[in-house]
Amino acid sequence: MVIRVAIAGPRGKMGQNAVHTVMRDDKMELVAVFDYKNIAPNLAQYQEFDATYSVPVFSSIQTLFETVQADVFVDLTVPEAGFIHTKAALFAGVRSVVGTTGFTESQLQELRYLSESAGIGCIIAPNFSIGAVLMMKFAQMAASYFPDTEIIEMHHDGKLDAPSGTALKTAQMIKENRMAHRQGAEAERETLEGARGGDFDGMRIHSVRLPGLVAHQQVLFGGTGELLTIRHDSFDRNSFMTGLTLSIEKVLELNQFVYGLENIL
Amino acid sequence: MVIRVAIAGPRGKMGQNAVHTVMRDDKMELVAVFDYKNIAPNLAQYQEFDATYSVPVFSSIQTLFETVQADVFVDLTVPEAGFIHTKAALFAGVRSVVGTTGFTESQLQELRYLSESAGIGCIIAPNFSIGAVLMMKFAQMAASYFPDTEIIEMHHDGKLDAPSGTALKTAQMIKENRMAHRQGAEAERETLEGARGGDFDGMRIHSVRLPGLVAHQQVLFGGTGELLTIRHDSFDRNSFMTGLTLSIEKVLELNQFVYGLENIL
Amino acid sequence: MVIRVAIAGPRGKMGQNAVHTVMRDDKMELVAVFDYKNIAPNLAQYQEFDATYSVPVFSSIQTLFETVQADVFVDLTVPEAGFIHTKAALFAGVRSVVGTTGFTESQLQELRYLSESAGIGCIIAPNFSIGAVLMMKFAQMAASYFPDTEIIEMHHDGKLDAPSGTALKTAQMIKENRMAHRQGAEAERETLEGARGGDFDGMRIHSVRLPGLVAHQQVLFGGTGELLTIRHDSFDRNSFMTGLTLSIEKVLELNQFVYGLENIL
Amino acid sequence: MVIRVAIAGPRGKMGQNAVHTVMRDDKMELVAVFDYKNIAPNLAQYQEFDATYSVPVFSSIQTLFETVQADVFVDLTVPEAGFIHTKAALFAGVRSVVGTTGFTESQLQELRYLSESAGIGCIIAPNFSIGAVLMMKFAQMAASYFPDTEIIEMHHDGKLDAPSGTALKTAQMIKENRMAHRQGAEAERETLEGARGGDFDGMRIHSVRLPGLVAHQQVLFGGTGELLTIRHDSFDRNSFMTGLTLSIEKVLELNQFVYGLENIL
Repeated sequence: MVIRVAIAGPRGKMGQNAVHTVMRDDKMELVAVFDYKNIAPNLAQYQEFDATYSVPVFSSIQTLFETVQADVFVDLTVPEAGFIHTKAALFAGVRSVVGTTGFTESQLQELRYLSESAGIGCIIAPNFSIGAVLMMKFAQMAASYFPDTEIIEMHHDGKLDAPSGTALKTAQMIKENRMAHRQGAEAERETLEGARGGDFDGMRIHSVRLPGLVAHQQVLFGGTGELLTIRHDSFDRNSFMTGLTLSIEKVLELNQFVYGLENIL
Repeated sequence: MVIRVAIAGPRGKMGQNAVHTVMRDDKMELVAVFDYKNIAPNLAQYQEFDATYSVPVFSSIQTLFETVQADVFVDLTVPEAGFIHTKAALFAGVRSVVGTTGFTESQLQELRYLSESAGIGCIIAPNFSIGAVLMMKFAQMAASYFPDTEIIEMHHDGKLDAPSGTALKTAQMIKENRMAHRQGAEAERETLEGARGGDFDGMRIHSVRLPGLVAHQQVLFGGTGELLTIRHDSFDRNSFMTGLTLSIEKVLELNQFVYGLENIL
Repeated sequence: MVIRVAIAGPRGKMGQNAVHTVMRDDKMELVAVFDYKNIAPNLAQYQEFDATYSVPVFSSIQTLFETVQADVFVDLTVPEAGFIHTKAALFAGVRSVVGTTGFTESQLQELRYLSESAGIGCIIAPNFSIGAVLMMKFAQMAASYFPDTEIIEMHHDGKLDAPSGTALKTAQMIKENRMAHRQGAEAERETLEGARGGDFDGMRIHSVRLPGLVAHQQVLFGGTGELLTIRHDSFDRNSFMTGLTLSIEKVLELNQFVYGLENIL
Repeated sequence: MVIRVAIAGPRGKMGQNAVHTVMRDDKMELVAVFDYKNIAPNLAQYQEFDATYSVPVFSSIQTLFETVQADVFVDLTVPEAGFIHTKAALFAGVRSVVGTTGFTESQLQELRYLSESAGIGCIIAPNFSIGAVLMMKFAQMAASYFPDTEIIEMHHDGKLDAPSGTALKTAQMIKENRMAHRQGAEAERETLEGARGGDFDGMRIHSVRLPGLVAHQQVLFGGTGELLTIRHDSFDRNSFMTGLTLSIEKVLELNQFVYGLENIL
């Protein structure tokens, strides 16, 4: 069986990649795209794609679900729109994979309710990179045995926030398993302020910013005479596509709401 | 409750460390040691230990179990002797933790039978390093999502075998989850023989040997645009002690036979 | 003073990047390009560039040098053509920076003779990545103190040759300083053929190939109780542009022939 | 010719290693040791050494130099004493290698004057690890080409100061070559205070502290599309001995004062 996929947000960076990924995958068929800008009725007419991408484009999400039979709906837009689209998909009985980030707690609760009351699978994945998600999962597992851990995340020097969202998410996941305590020597002192990094529940996070870097993180666990390191390097945007493909396949078997790729790995 | 521990092989490198570890642990008490050489009746008289190590020494394993009440027996000797000691322990109803390596398949089967028919926990741990075991376990898990993997192990240049036992064990564990295929470009060619490393079921293992190194291994998983690395560095022998302590605590709750620390983590 | 630059090979990957780099650099001016295909008389008409790139295009190298006054000529074509272009440049008294690889020994000798007899600087740079060149230079220096070294190079799994050209070049440079000897334990043996990597003058080279990787190399030096590692990661083609810019600036001060960026760093 | 060596401070950790190193080296002979504690007239009577270490012990530095003919004097004591010993050595015309740290600026100036006016070589080496010194030297060289750099140093969690002395020394050396500027995005902000590490002249230093670690440092240089990393791992104290041996050999050829091993590499 070929999986019939509809995608919202085909012009964004992730959206374009998603369109290419589905089009090239023999096990999938792109049956429709949603684009709120009424640019052209067919994707083949878009400058981002070529003539072989003959897929109907809709600028009304209701019309899309009334017109086209899709097995999985993929949203790669923005929170406000993505929330409306995903509700429409679930109402229409279409399983959903949502890569949009920034939903409020109440939006997530409403989507969870809609998904679970109808028994229609829905995956919200703030991070589609399987490597990054495994790194976080392994770090959380390791924290049960190694309570002393530090995170070093490294990004290009155009990044504004430190630490990265992934580093904070990792620290939060580690915290759930780690025996809480303040790390380092008791009499430790910084002769250069900030050298010991940011303090998150007693563990330390270090943010490196350099030109040339893309997105990298390592989580270090120290024990007597040993060091365990879990590292993820993301070299380009395409690293997200393996996770998207996996989510599309997995959501077909799901009847509930899942937040985070780590829960389907 | 304090755990009463008996140790066989107190003079070896691991044995000495184990004696120190148990003596210093408030939750444990060293109630006896077995030493086949009849050196002295008390450990305090051994040159490896000092006067505070007042623990009876036995050179008959049967006498030990008849005389002393132990909760856990720890064997750190050699396969032939360790096999006899562990059988004696299980016959005497004493749970066992065995760090000895090199048992034959039939010895392992006999120990398993004795342990499980009597419902007495027995842990055989060829590797007590929790970090190394987690590395192998995580590598096995990652292989389900990333079928392309290579192992780089690095040891001091006095090591005779390449690859290391840990690298081969890791490869074996990965193989159970990995979609089998030959990695690398189809038309790949070595202009320097051996550059692509050893071929294990289509994946590659590389062995680095340099003075100064201790025992290090990294497992690399490559996917579209990303790299996941799991690395373990063992800086000294003490890295084994955390796993020994954990095993002694865990075996108390076990009624069956466990081979490999990865099965209790 | 603004440096007047002429570029041969503007449509290739490196060529396009070079055109952009020179156009965006305030200290340089792109005064001409050479393209053997007579596509259009001005670069602004090329589909690879936009209307702001108004630069005359020549398909005769002689005409270029007769018509346009250039301070530096940059060749990014193929060996046969690049050889002819560079000779023409040197005859015309124009300093040259050549990123083309694959010249024969006799071609190099002829270029060296032309450059040095006329006292016109000429830099042949098979590798413009300053990071890669520094890695090789540092490795060569370290080899004087640490005779035990291994190279691990890691590339995407589409790469056909193993080891990489950079790894072989590095090994060659190390060999010049390293006390020759066979590394590893005397009784060392491979239980998996190839595990110890390729043997280059007694040191070992390991080639890792995985999807997701770009171009990475580390050189390890082991000594008593210590390890020195020099690593270079190339994440994209742009890493070559810093070296090109530096070469253009340096060649202006040169009156001789230089082979390899390491000789101007 | 065998080099006749005298050592001050034979009972300290480095001192013991130095004694062993000289005793085992065929090219050297240990002709005397200085120990301010009048423990025994011969090193063979010391509990730290065995009967084969028959070397006269002096508790007056003057008597030592009057009695014994030494080619090189090695001081591994404390600043106050080491200053007096080294002066005595230079007065006696004995070349000196000093591993003692913490001299004041005026003490260093006096030693330099004594050494250079008499033309007697003197090496003051706050760090004998050749690997660490090469790391610093390479980092300084790389800074000329890559002005964006961060230092990550990692030590066991018993270390009190952050950053380490080596990290600060490295930063100081980099500063001499680096184009000064504030790194990172202009609008960069820490959502967790200290995440961006300590600020040293616009570059950042990060200090990791974990059990199990020994002494490790990496210096990262980021450029367009590339990353150059120089890393040093010190696994045990013995890493200092290669540098001591080299210094003893080099000082024989020196007629001047040298501060820092980097100046003889």
